Amino acid sequence: MTDADKVFRDIEAIRAQNPVVLNITNYVVTNTTANALLALGASPIMSHAVEEMAELVGISGALVVNLGTVAPEYLAAMDPAWAAADEAGVPVVLDPVGAGASLLRTGTPLALLARRKACIVRGNASEIMTLAGSGGSTKGVDSTARSDDAAGFAGALAQRLNCAVVVSGEADIVCAGGASARVLGGSALMPRVTGLGCTATALCGAFAAVNADPFEAALHACVTMKVAGEMAADKASGPGTLQVYLYDALYALGADDIRRRLKVER
Amino acid sequence: MTDADKVFRDIEAIRAQNPVVLNITNYVVTNTTANALLALGASPIMSHAVEEMAELVGISGALVVNLGTVAPEYLAAMDPAWAAADEAGVPVVLDPVGAGASLLRTGTPLALLARRKACIVRGNASEIMTLAGSGGSTKGVDSTARSDDAAGFAGALAQRLNCAVVVSGEADIVCAGGASARVLGGSALMPRVTGLGCTATALCGAFAAVNADPFEAALHACVTMKVAGEMAADKASGPGTLQVYLYDALYALGADDIRRRLKVER
Amino acid sequence: MTDADKVFRDIEAIRAQNPVVLNITNYVVTNTTANALLALGASPIMSHAVEEMAELVGISGALVVNLGTVAPEYLAAMDPAWAAADEAGVPVVLDPVGAGASLLRTGTPLALLARRKACIVRGNASEIMTLAGSGGSTKGVDSTARSDDAAGFAGALAQRLNCAVVVSGEADIVCAGGASARVLGGSALMPRVTGLGCTATALCGAFAAVNADPFEAALHACVTMKVAGEMAADKASGPGTLQVYLYDALYALGADDIRRRLKVER
Repeated sequence: MTDADKVFRDIEAIRAQNPVVLNITNYVVTNTTANALLALGASPIMSHAVEEMAELVGISGALVVNLGTVAPEYLAAMDPAWAAADEAGVPVVLDPVGAGASLLRTGTPLALLARRKACIVRGNASEIMTLAGSGGSTKGVDSTARSDDAAGFAGALAQRLNCAVVVSGEADIVCAGGASARVLGGSALMPRVTGLGCTATALCGAFAAVNADPFEAALHACVTMKVAGEMAADKASGPGTLQVYLYDALYALGADDIRRRLKVER
Repeated sequence: MTDADKVFRDIEAIRAQNPVVLNITNYVVTNTTANALLALGASPIMSHAVEEMAELVGISGALVVNLGTVAPEYLAAMDPAWAAADEAGVPVVLDPVGAGASLLRTGTPLALLARRKACIVRGNASEIMTLAGSGGSTKGVDSTARSDDAAGFAGALAQRLNCAVVVSGEADIVCAGGASARVLGGSALMPRVTGLGCTATALCGAFAAVNADPFEAALHACVTMKVAGEMAADKASGPGTLQVYLYDALYALGADDIRRRLKVER
Repeated sequence: MTDADKVFRDIEAIRAQNPVVLNITNYVVTNTTANALLALGASPIMSHAVEEMAELVGISGALVVNLGTVAPEYLAAMDPAWAAADEAGVPVVLDPVGAGASLLRTGTPLALLARRKACIVRGNASEIMTLAGSGGSTKGVDSTARSDDAAGFAGALAQRLNCAVVVSGEADIVCAGGASARVLGGSALMPRVTGLGCTATALCGAFAAVNADPFEAALHACVTMKVAGEMAADKASGPGTLQVYLYDALYALGADDIRRRLKVER
């Protein structure tokens, strides 16, 4: 089975099963990541109400913990939800948004990872380098490093955390165990749309809900973003239209689109 | 006067009066429901600051209470706002998002409805069946039942609460008193855009601000969503473009569009 | 150097420097104002976590304080962030959303301005008249007055606060010191998209990050909104498509677009 066939098999599983993906996420992307999950075929729910976390985890195929909003009312739900997910065997995807930009954004993901086991950690180069202890710099929530420069750090972090690690960028880097892959494609317009990194994280959740292999789930999410982003860029005249056509592409994505556009290097 | 003429008469009233619609709503749809209200001609305000609720209710034509975010900081404003609305004679529209998915999402709308009088309650089949005590199942915030299966429950709930009840779905069901109607049309893409149910709820608020009959207000909001959704689907290539064209359609909606596309069964 | 050349010089500076713009803003526009800043070339960060404010201010070229959500968890971060900005010499842009609609929305910006120094205050006519003490009425968050009617109040407020004041409307009014200007253009569709006022405020932040003259920064932001709005309106079929094409226009904006479309009266 080729990579493209495996990606499409997972997309078909998401479309058939409509797995619930529970997102504790930031208030910049609640709408856009929910739309991306719906377009792909998953059933998103966005909440940070600690009282309902265990119940919602119980009906979910994956939990996405996104640290974009680090206000206390958002943070309080994360560890209880993650604990419930661990107990129920629900895979957890972590997005350490802005790690390196403030002590809170660096310390919170590290504290969560010290207590809990992630299935996939996805960030940009600055964020992953920060978690790996490189002292990588950052510029707010945007990266100041290239993804390829973070590849070694991502590999080490994946080994240490025993999970898959994704570094998004011009090339997406996916590492788990000893394996690694580079995913190319997409569009230079993508960093000009807010929350497409968070969208990649949310899609990792959808793929983790149907594929128990963290490396494959992460890889397939990255391929899906790159292929859909490229399809959207073919029609877009700027970042506004790119975002809109990205949902259309996630919805329409066929086996041929993936076969023709997939660019994975191992 | 035909149904179509009555719908358009209300739309013209909204466009002429620009009623303020106060929304205590979830953080997934604040932007999108505000845009839908503005496109139709209403003047939305989104707030959950309990300190200003009575004042804002005082300048509003309707209050929308949407339970999509059940975090304490959102919930705290709902009963005080509703009490102020009751006192001022401002109609209240309730959206029990995710009722059935967690104890909090089931108990909160029931507790509010036990104390306060709604003008319109709008939900999907699972949500309305849950409020009606059917023990209906749910899948996160998406329904696992068809709207027609919830029609009997909706009728009973409307009688019990003495308000209009809407079940959104492939056919929208509207009930109040002994009356009921099915509204057809729209597009199969609509459930693939997050918050279009919440948008229907918000539009119920706009119509309730200009039409004192809860059944008519609810019916006209459903017709407007179905007609605008169909117009948008004629131009859309997926859920991303559907959402964008939906605002354009709400803005452009003419009497002829409604006459040609309205499909109401009584 | 013409006005158009000066506007474009600042846009080129934003595109070259990608200044971080820190936004404490409302939950209706987090996504859309972040997208506008990214499209123009700035690097937005949205946060209301008081714990990280001083650190984030330290990497920011401007701070935007937007009062659209006046819940306590949002308000708590504003004064500490502003104090840190004052100390670091980071310019602060204030948007008094809904001033006049509630005591909280009127009192909060006045209390902040009594303690702290703004670089630019931007609002609609009702909001600016309220801050200037005119007792101007408001209708929720939409203005009930025309921007030209607020010009005198804006000039007086600018003198009193020793900052630039912008009144957005059919004509944008910009005042600072004794100077004032009217900016024309844009599209009648713009008030039908939620948060375009907040977007103008966010762009004021981007321009203030690269231009130390508050009057020029405010003027250039208004010109950019009017020109990009007009470009978007040329392609739009309603408020939905207008918003999407606005991002495309902010991204594509060239020197010729500004030269051809700029309409400034002094």
